[in-house]
Parts: sequence; structure tokens; C-alpha cells
Amino acid sequence: MVFMDDNFLLTNEAARVLYHQYAAAMPIIDYHCHIPAEEIAKDVRFSSITDLWLGADHYKWRAMRSNGVPEELITGNGDPFEKFEAFAATLERAIGNPLYHWSHLELQRYFGIKEPLTKASARRIYDRCNEVLADPSMTARGIIRRSDVRLLCTTDDPADDLRWHRLIAMDPTFSVKVLPAFRPDRALDIEKPDFITYIRAELSNVFGRPIELYTDLKECLAARIAFFAEHGCKVADHGMSYVCYAPCTDAEAETIFRKAINNEPINLMERLMYRTHLLSFLAAEYAKAGWVMQLHYGVKRDNNTKLFRQSGANNGCDCIDNYTPAAELADFLNSLCLRDALPKTILYSLNPIDNAVVGTVLGCFQDDSCICKIQQGSAWWFNDNKKGMEEQLTSLANLGVLGNFVGMLTDSRSFLSYTRHEYFRRILCNLIGTWVTNGEYPCDLAVLGGLVADISFNNCNRYFDFGLTV
Amino acid sequence: MVFMDDNFLLTNEAARVLYHQYAAAMPIIDYHCHIPAEEIAKDVRFSSITDLWLGADHYKWRAMRSNGVPEELITGNGDPFEKFEAFAATLERAIGNPLYHWSHLELQRYFGIKEPLTKASARRIYDRCNEVLADPSMTARGIIRRSDVRLLCTTDDPADDLRWHRLIAMDPTFSVKVLPAFRPDRALDIEKPDFITYIRAELSNVFGRPIELYTDLKECLAARIAFFAEHGCKVADHGMSYVCYAPCTDAEAETIFRKAINNEPINLMERLMYRTHLLSFLAAEYAKAGWVMQLHYGVKRDNNTKLFRQSGANNGCDCIDNYTPAAELADFLNSLCLRDALPKTILYSLNPIDNAVVGTVLGCFQDDSCICKIQQGSAWWFNDNKKGMEEQLTSLANLGVLGNFVGMLTDSRSFLSYTRHEYFRRILCNLIGTWVTNGEYPCDLAVLGGLVADISFNNCNRYFDFGLTV
Amino acid sequence: MVFMDDNFLLTNEAARVLYHQYAAAMPIIDYHCHIPAEEIAKDVRFSSITDLWLGADHYKWRAMRSNGVPEELITGNGDPFEKFEAFAATLERAIGNPLYHWSHLELQRYFGIKEPLTKASARRIYDRCNEVLADPSMTARGIIRRSDVRLLCTTDDPADDLRWHRLIAMDPTFSVKVLPAFRPDRALDIEKPDFITYIRAELSNVFGRPIELYTDLKECLAARIAFFAEHGCKVADHGMSYVCYAPCTDAEAETIFRKAINNEPINLMERLMYRTHLLSFLAAEYAKAGWVMQLHYGVKRDNNTKLFRQSGANNGCDCIDNYTPAAELADFLNSLCLRDALPKTILYSLNPIDNAVVGTVLGCFQDDSCICKIQQGSAWWFNDNKKGMEEQLTSLANLGVLGNFVGMLTDSRSFLSYTRHEYFRRILCNLIGTWVTNGEYPCDLAVLGGLVADISFNNCNRYFDFGLTV
Repeated sequence: MVFMDDNFLLTNEAARVLYHQYAAAMPIIDYHCHIPAEEIAKDVRFSSITDLWLGADHYKWRAMRSNGVPEELITGNGDPFEKFEAFAATLERAIGNPLYHWSHLELQRYFGIKEPLTKASARRIYDRCNEVLADPSMTARGIIRRSDVRLLCTTDDPADDLRWHRLIAMDPTFSVKVLPAFRPDRALDIEKPDFITYIRAELSNVFGRPIELYTDLKECLAARIAFFAEHGCKVADHGMSYVCYAPCTDAEAETIFRKAINNEPINLMERLMYRTHLLSFLAAEYAKAGWVMQLHYGVKRDNNTKLFRQSGANNGCDCIDNYTPAAELADFLNSLCLRDALPKTILYSLNPIDNAVVGTVLGCFQDDSCICKIQQGSAWWFNDNKKGMEEQLTSLANLGVLGNFVGMLTDSRSFLSYTRHEYFRRILCNLIGTWVTNGEYPCDLAVLGGLVADISFNNCNRYFDFGLTV
Repeated sequence: MVFMDDNFLLTNEAARVLYHQYAAAMPIIDYHCHIPAEEIAKDVRFSSITDLWLGADHYKWRAMRSNGVPEELITGNGDPFEKFEAFAATLERAIGNPLYHWSHLELQRYFGIKEPLTKASARRIYDRCNEVLADPSMTARGIIRRSDVRLLCTTDDPADDLRWHRLIAMDPTFSVKVLPAFRPDRALDIEKPDFITYIRAELSNVFGRPIELYTDLKECLAARIAFFAEHGCKVADHGMSYVCYAPCTDAEAETIFRKAINNEPINLMERLMYRTHLLSFLAAEYAKAGWVMQLHYGVKRDNNTKLFRQSGANNGCDCIDNYTPAAELADFLNSLCLRDALPKTILYSLNPIDNAVVGTVLGCFQDDSCICKIQQGSAWWFNDNKKGMEEQLTSLANLGVLGNFVGMLTDSRSFLSYTRHEYFRRILCNLIGTWVTNGEYPCDLAVLGGLVADISFNNCNRYFDFGLTV
Repeated sequence: MVFMDDNFLLTNEAARVLYHQYAAAMPIIDYHCHIPAEEIAKDVRFSSITDLWLGADHYKWRAMRSNGVPEELITGNGDPFEKFEAFAATLERAIGNPLYHWSHLELQRYFGIKEPLTKASARRIYDRCNEVLADPSMTARGIIRRSDVRLLCTTDDPADDLRWHRLIAMDPTFSVKVLPAFRPDRALDIEKPDFITYIRAELSNVFGRPIELYTDLKECLAARIAFFAEHGCKVADHGMSYVCYAPCTDAEAETIFRKAINNEPINLMERLMYRTHLLSFLAAEYAKAGWVMQLHYGVKRDNNTKLFRQSGANNGCDCIDNYTPAAELADFLNSLCLRDALPKTILYSLNPIDNAVVGTVLGCFQDDSCICKIQQGSAWWFNDNKKGMEEQLTSLANLGVLGNFVGMLTDSRSFLSYTRHEYFRRILCNLIGTWVTNGEYPCDLAVLGGLVADISFNNCNRYFDFGLTV
């Protein structure tokens, strides 16, 4: 086949029909990303393709480090073109890495460039990209619009005042919904050095009075949930190394919180008890609000202390963790279910070997309050590649009802990453098309096309209750 | 290809020859299932396809819950057709789920229905199935006969009186062997609330005198093994969350048992010691009797307490567990081997990521007392699908000697599930056919056909010493 | 396709061009093997194909045990032809096992035999192999030469005097570099029964004075590193069940060592602290010397005590372990990185489910001191098969920069195992060729051919600083 042409990743006729006639036209909901609302509100522009591509993309940074590029040209103050060229040289060696496809999809869709990016073509492509970026339409909002994004959820701390979201919502010239997502990690990370400051200063500040007791904290977070809901929020997000289950009484949770807030040492078991207790409280609040709770786990962050001191978190030094006990996950969800406090929930493990555990855990807690109430999240971060997606889709299909899947998210800091929805849809259509081609499913393309459209957009719209119309 | 025609899952000519000329004609041994002997003895009939399909099938229940179907139409008292229709509607969304293939294989083979089951076709198919079920031959025995089953092993508690097995054996009109399998889980689950009742009432009752001491228990179980052996039993079966190895002395085991039986608390280590000690005793007895010991693990059961209270165990709320320490498994088998007390053993982990561990553990304990004495069980339960089978077969082939594999079992409560043997054989033939087609193995179809026939029937017959003739 | 012809494993034209035009001609560096230097120095001959194939090959032994062959014909004193015939009969059943391909590649490349090995052909093939082995060129060195091996690294204890390496190096008639590799497992295995003897006798002996203190041990090992470096050593190798991280002070390490050396009991935590401390010390020494540190883990050895007593270690009774905590691995590497003591490192887990963990851990510690400083080792031992290699390559490609991979090693005790480099290269070319054929990468075969040549030879030559020229 030709390199990345219209039928990229579509290896059979059924797949091509499903993608081109059903999936491609569906708009995008990006229910989980890390774009700052401020950049949308201000409708920022990008000084160069280096700024856009290498300014905050830890995927690219990791690859460049693996190619021996000095940090100066990665997170440092190197010359923009030299950085771009170093990335191009890296990409040439990175066959099989999703960055190769992501980068070329972005060059094709946003810049009209079909030529492979290599060290040799770097100058030409750099200049052409920068010309395109000079076009008045190539702003944050312009890129979102031309990607046919209808709604996106940012990721926000409970202490956030959401003023940028309000500004965007009030702006009649921009119809894309930009909703906050509630991510209270800092309130749960009781062991972190900034916990006290976070509670006593940042949260107390938005609460309007000092948070001294655990009951204050719960009251404050409930109020913030209400505040976020007023701004259209439909979803919470929790990042953790694993989902623990260490139940304790209200009194015990209060004692642990008081210790921590007063800078007394707490032990590992206390940490787990506090986390279990507060997450249970929050889950019940989400259930009441009709929100979706996302639980992300299987990650160990900031492993390179030296680089962390240099360039901080999210600099490409995280890894997959393999301590993710299935028993605690199941027991935690069961405890919520028993108290009628289990919200719609999306589970993601960063460790691909957890697919089967997740796929079987979610089947234990489905009910008729919502179609596919408990979901497995799309192949995420390190698994956001062809093999990772195929494995997640195959596992989910084997263990659940694929037709009810809420589909893709970018989890990205980049305005160009919407092509990952295209990447996902092509892989999805190819998988289903292959099954049909092999005689494993009836070749009823209208039915399968509807299913593909559902996974691309409709299921997500319904599940989160976003209320969009196609 | 055409949807599920004669060449379903057979993607190359070699595969088609292997399946149609060698595998298809082999009879079935189903060495592990959960059909009640009573239903065979009474030669029960089925009131409707809903009764047959949805009466006890937790696979279907799980899928329906994932499609938002109310429990009333799953395990509840809903209308039979409405239940069937709800399942049909679910199946339409469940592309990629083995239920799709299982259900259509059953419709084709037992009901002559080739049409896909959808919400739209549900009424027609429901009525046609019920017509077929009205045929006098469509009884428990009739279905077993027409499936060409020659022998099946049920799953039975040591306290079972095996009267239904005796009745079947004495009936000259039914030549299929229906053997018991010995499953003493309740004697090992010392932590379960019904342990005392089980020992003091049920087991003591069949023993003929009160079981007060651990030595009594061992004596009783040895007697029950002899009793089961008199009824043709060749196999024991153990379900557990993981294979532990916590050795202790006879005196310690006695003390722990006495505590438990007298309702005194025992701790986790005592549980593991008791389990290790009793399982070691039983294994030695199996070795003496020439039985096969099955160890199933990697499962966490009854995770949804709310539904458990409503509809009990085996209602579709189990999940895969990921705490399955390889070291304890290897040490346990080694301890038996050292005492010449290691029986023929089949290992199954429900967690597919354990394939490589299992495949390498078994290679450590093979000897010349039996060809492939230690086996990896077929892809089981949540892994009983195309990908799960292909991965198990490929792993086993890479790490062991595939030609000596004892093959498929249904592990099922359903009389229609014998088509899963066909499913397995098609996947097996396709895998081997693909290797041959790619030039990876010599295209000697007579030799390969013999190997396929062995894995389909002969190996199992020899390994368990069932003494059948084809 | 034809069975194992020139295009074996090459399923598309791009793959065939990449293999035949770029990969096949590259010489071999075997940077990790277990061939005794003495056998090369003495240029040994082989009394028969049984001697060569079955004398020390635990892969074959395991397969034969799984086929019910008595130990007499495996590690015992059975007749050479009977042993060979028993292996042939086993191989016939072992479809899908890499032994099938390895054996036939060896028959084709070294003996000119294209016929499949079966029980029926065993006599003919046995005689023909023995005729070929009688040829004067079929010595240890002759086989190495005709395999186009340019350099190989043996595996050596720090106490080794390396005299065989010196003899080989001084011999002008043999130009292949045979370098030692430094494997100080016995100095780290403080819990092993022979630790005291090893330290007090073997190591003290080469040190020239008694090792009484931990500081003595460190001094001794540093001296041995220097001694190995004088003999051209570039690489250390560590086998362990998992990479632990239990930091302790110098004083604590000294105390633990003194206890052990004086035969006082040490507990588990002390073992882990000692191991962490000494491995950290060694790593820093390797970094100073510019060596590569190999860390192999995920294995549980010598599981069958009965067979161990009969035939010792490395007899085919090892298994994959699944306790391999990612967090400790990452923390250990971080601790070295922080002290600028992280050498070039190759990580291998024997458990294939660790691919994603390893692939993401290595990305955290890359820097510009060396291209791809931290590497994932090739699919190893139980994973050294088509699926294992494809999964390792795909994972590495997804998570890192495949073009910088140092490629294959044999890890073998056999002089015929160089065909495994051919096996690897065919699989590599087929994978890349498939991507190109599917339009996933530009079809620039000169660029891809260069990348294949790099992974086959050049990367390894550069990374280890071997200084060879093609």
C-alpha cells in the first residue's frame, strides 16, 4: 500500500466502508484532555511548529532522549529549528512508535504535508509548518473548530475558580462546549509535601473559611462539586498508583486527617484508609450528581529525580507500575455498590496486562441504571498505539459489550492531537471489518456502521449526558 | 467470507483439510463440566429456549447487564420471550464476544437456524427453537447423544451419594459414560461460614461417624476417594484464588482444624497452612489412585454482595484475580514431587497473563510416568474465546509439546455447550494450518491430522485412562 | 509456502529484500553466551550430534521430559542414538516450539540436511550429522568462523583467572574476539550456602589476601573489574529473581556482610539491603569503566529438588517468576542516576508480561551520554521464539526508538545456536516489511535496510564500544 493514504490502517473493504461512510463524519467529543482553558479563552497562537509540537509533549521528549539528544534541545533553551531537526532525526529511527503516525497525521491534516519527516526534510517541513501557523485561522480555537470538536473536558483542580471556562461559555463566537472536569488528586494525596498548604491555603481560600476538620474538607469538596456542576461539569478524574481498599470509620478518617493537617507523621495504612474513605465519599457525591468517575491507575510518576529537579513533573519520566491488586479494586466498587453510592465509572489501568482484570471487574457491577454503567477506558498514554488499542478493543469485546463503549479520549496537552480520534476510529473500523471479512460476523454494514458511529460519538454523548446533537 | 459457514474460522486450505478430515469426526470427551447428573438421569426436557439458554448461564447474564437490561429480565421472573428478546438485543451489540459465536453455533447445530439473531429476528427464532425443543429427541440425553459425547465428568462434592451416577450407569439404554469428579473445595475452605456445618453434618454423615479430628477428616476423604473411584471417578478438581505453599507439621494442621471446628478464630497464615497441608494429603491420595488433579486459580468470586444476596453464587459477578504467585505454585508441586506424591496435574489460571508462568512451571515436573504428566488446562471461562485459545495454544506450543495436550473442556452448565469443542477444534486446526501455510512446518497433513485427532480426543482418553475406543 | 526455504518467515517482498540484501550479510556479535572459553581455546571436536545437541541443552531436555522420555535418555547414560531418536520423536510432537525451527535451521546450515527430523528419519540424519562432524573443519572454532561471528562474550566469575581468554587472544590463527563478561552473582547471593566458601576461599585467593570486611570485598571486586577490563571485558551480567531496592548505609552493609561471613543468620531485609548496596557499588564501578550492566530477572531456578540432586543446576527445571516489582526497579535506577553512577544498562525480564514495564522504565533514564543508554534486552530464554520476539520488538518500538536497539544474543551453551541470530533477523525484517507493506511506513528500503543492519550489528558494536569494522 501507499504510505498513510486515505486507506491508512484499513486493510479490507468492509473496514474502508465503515470508516469512510460512518466513522469519519462523526464529530469529536474529547471527554478527557489537559489543554488549559486559558489558552482557549485567549485563543492563543503558536510561534512555531517547535512551540506547538515540542513545548509540552513528553512523548516526543522521551523519544528524543532515547536517541541521545541533549536536554538543551528537549526541554532546554535550544534553538527552535535545531530542536525540530533533532526530533525529525529521532523520528526517522522510531519506526513502530505511534509518534511516527501521530506526527504524520498532524502534518497531513493540519498542514497539508504528505512528505515523510526526516532529518533531510526537516528544514522544508519546518518552514512550511510555520507558514501555515501564520494563517489567521490557526489559533487554539481555529484548530479545535476545524477538528470538528463539539465538546471537550479540561482537567481542573477543585480550587480552580473556572473563570476561563465562564469566559468561553459566555462568548457567542465560539460554540464548542469547554467543560471543566473535577480532579481532586491533591486532596487525596495526604502523603505529599504540599498537602497542608493545599488544604489550609488553596482549598480553604475557595471555601471561604479555614478547613480544620475532615468534615470541613468533605463539606468544601461537596460545595466545589456543586460549583463545578453549575459550570456544566459531568465528570471527575482520579489519578493514583492503584485503587486501594482499606475501609475505616469516620472517626478514624477524621483522626488521620487531623494528624496530617497538623504535620504529624502518618503511616502507610493510615494513608490508604484516608484515601479509601475520602474517595468513597466523593464517589457517593458523584453518584448523586449523576457524574462519571474516572479512575486511572498503574502508573509510577517522576522516576528521575535529577530531571524532575531540572524540569518538574510531566517531563517524560513516568513508568507503568505493576502493583495493581484486582481484589482491592473489586472490593472498593462493591462497597460503593452496597451503599447505592456507585457512580458511572470508567476504569483505566496504564498496565496493558490489566485488560482482562478490568474487563471482568466491570462486568460485576453493571445494572439497568445506565447502559454499560461501568466502562473500561480507551487504551491510554503508553498504550495509545495500534497494538494497545487493538488489545483493549479485543479484550473489551471478549469480556463485555463492545457496542456500548464510550470510545476515545486524547488525554493530551496538544491542540493537534485530535487526529488520535481518527487513528482510533481507523483501528476500530479495521478490527470490525476484519471480523466481517473473515465471516465471523454478518456483513450488515448499516448495522455495523451504526455501531461504529455509536462508539465514535453517540455512546459518549449519551453516557455522560452531554446533550449534543450530531 | 460468508458468515459462519462450513469453513468458519478456517482461513486456509490446510486448516480446512485438518478440520473437516481429521478433527470434525472425533467424538467428544468433556472431562470437566457442571451439568447435574440428576438432569441426565431424569433425561429432562426444556420448556423453552429461554429456559435452556438463560436459566443458568452467567455469561449471558453478564452481557445483558452490560446492556442495561433490568435484573427482572435476567435472573428474575420476567416473561420468557421478553428475556429472550432482551438477550437478542444485547447480542446485536456484543460484536467480538464469544457469546455471539457460541449462540449462533448452537442455533445452527441444534436448531438448524442460520439466520443471525437480532432484536428483529428474535420472535421468529424463539418460536422455531421452541418447536424444535418439542421434538421428542431434544432431551438432555438426546442432546448429549447427537453431540457425539462419549464421556463426561460432572463436578461433585465428596459428600455426594452419587446415586444419579449409579442410575445412569445401570441404564442399558444410555451408553455415554457419566463419571463423577471429586471437588472437595468445602473441606479446604476453612474460613468459610459453612465449614463447621459441612464437616460436622454433611461429611460426618456420609462418613458414618462424627469428624472431630483432622485425622478423622483425612480418613473420611480417603474413604470418599475410594467410593468415587468405585463409581469410575478419575479426576479431582480444586478451585482456589491461588495455589499457596505454607508448609506445616501434622500437629499444627491438627491444631488449626480443631480451632476451626470449634468455632475459634484462625488467622490468615493458619488458613494457608491448613490448605497446604490438606491439599498435599489429597494430592498424595490422587497419585496413589492414578487420578488427575485439576488446580484452577486466578479468580475472585461473588464480588457484588448486593446481587449475591439476591441471586446467590455463580450469578456472573466473578472476576479475574492477579495475585497468583508463581513461586508458591512451583514450591508446592516440588514438595509433592520430592515425596513421590505428585499426581497427574492440570493447571489453569483464569488470568491469561499467567500463560507463560504456567507453561514454564509444568516443564519442571514432567517425568516418564505419563506422557505430559503436568498439563496446562485449555483457555477457560473468561479466556474461552478465539484470542484466549490462540494465546493459550501458542504459549503451550512455545513452552511445551503441543502434540500431547489433552485439549478442550466446556466447564459449562449448559447442554448445548458441546459446540465449544467444535469452536476449539476449528481454532486449533486454523492455527496449525496457518503455520503450515506459512512454511513454518512441513505440510504432512496425515501426521498433522493425527496430531489434531490426538488433541481432540486421543490424548485425553489416554491421559485420564478412560479406556474409550473411537 | 515451502517448508523453511530461503524465504522462511519472510511473508512479503519488502521483508525479503530487507533480509536478503541487508540483514543476512551482517556478521554476528554474540554479546552474551555461556560457551566455555576453554572449549574454544582447545578447539574441541564433538563425538556425535547427540554430544553436540543433547550434551547440555536444557531446552531439549525439557521437551523430552514432556514427551515421557526416561531421564536415562535425557541427562543419563543412555545410548547416543537412542537419545537422538527419543529427541526426534519428541520434536515430531512439538509443533509450535522454537526447538523445531532451531533444530532444522541447524541441520540446514551446518549439515546441509533439508529433510524434516522425525522418528522415521532419525537414523539417516544421525549418521549424516556424524559424518559431517568428522570433517576437520567442524570444531568449536570452525563452527564459530563459518557462522561469521566476529566477537563473542563468555560469562565468567570474578574469581576466574581468564587464562583461556588469554590463550585465545594470543593465538594468531584465530581472529574472532572472545571476551570475558563479568558475572559476580556469587558475591551478591549472600543467602546461598556456598557464600562463605566463595568469599573466603575463591575470591580471597585471587585477591591475594583474606577478605574479612565488606570494604575488602569491594576492593577485591574493583580489582577484578580492572583485571577483566585488561582482558577486553566491556560488560557485566547479573542474574536475580527481581531487581530490589532496599537502600542502607555503608555501616549497615558492613555489619550484614560480617554476619554472613561469620555464619550468623541474616534476615530477608538484610539480604535485600546487602544486595542493593553491593549492586549499587558495582554499577558505579561499571559506569566508571564505561561497561554495560546487564540485569536479568523474572526467573525462579532449580524448582525440582529431586532432579537437582540428580543432575544439578541448569537441567531444565527453572520457571518464569511473576514477582518483579516495577517500583523497586525504577527506584534503584533513579538512585544510581542521582549519584551519576548509572552505567549503560540492559534490562531483561524473563516474564513477557513485563515488556511494557521495562519499555517505560528505560525511557525514564536516557540521556545524551550514549544513544539509547538504557536498553531492553532481546526476547530471552523462554521468550526466544517468534511470538516472544515479535512482542518484544513491537513493545520496544511502541515505547522507545527501535532503530537504536542492540539486538540479539544467544544466551546459549551451544556452538550451533548462532542460527538464532538468523531467526531473529528474519523476524525483525518480516515485522518491518509488514509495516511497510501495509502503508504504515514509507517504503524507503535503503533507509530501512540501514536500520536493519544497525540492529543486526552496528548498534551493538557502537553501544558496547567493541571497535569492530564490518
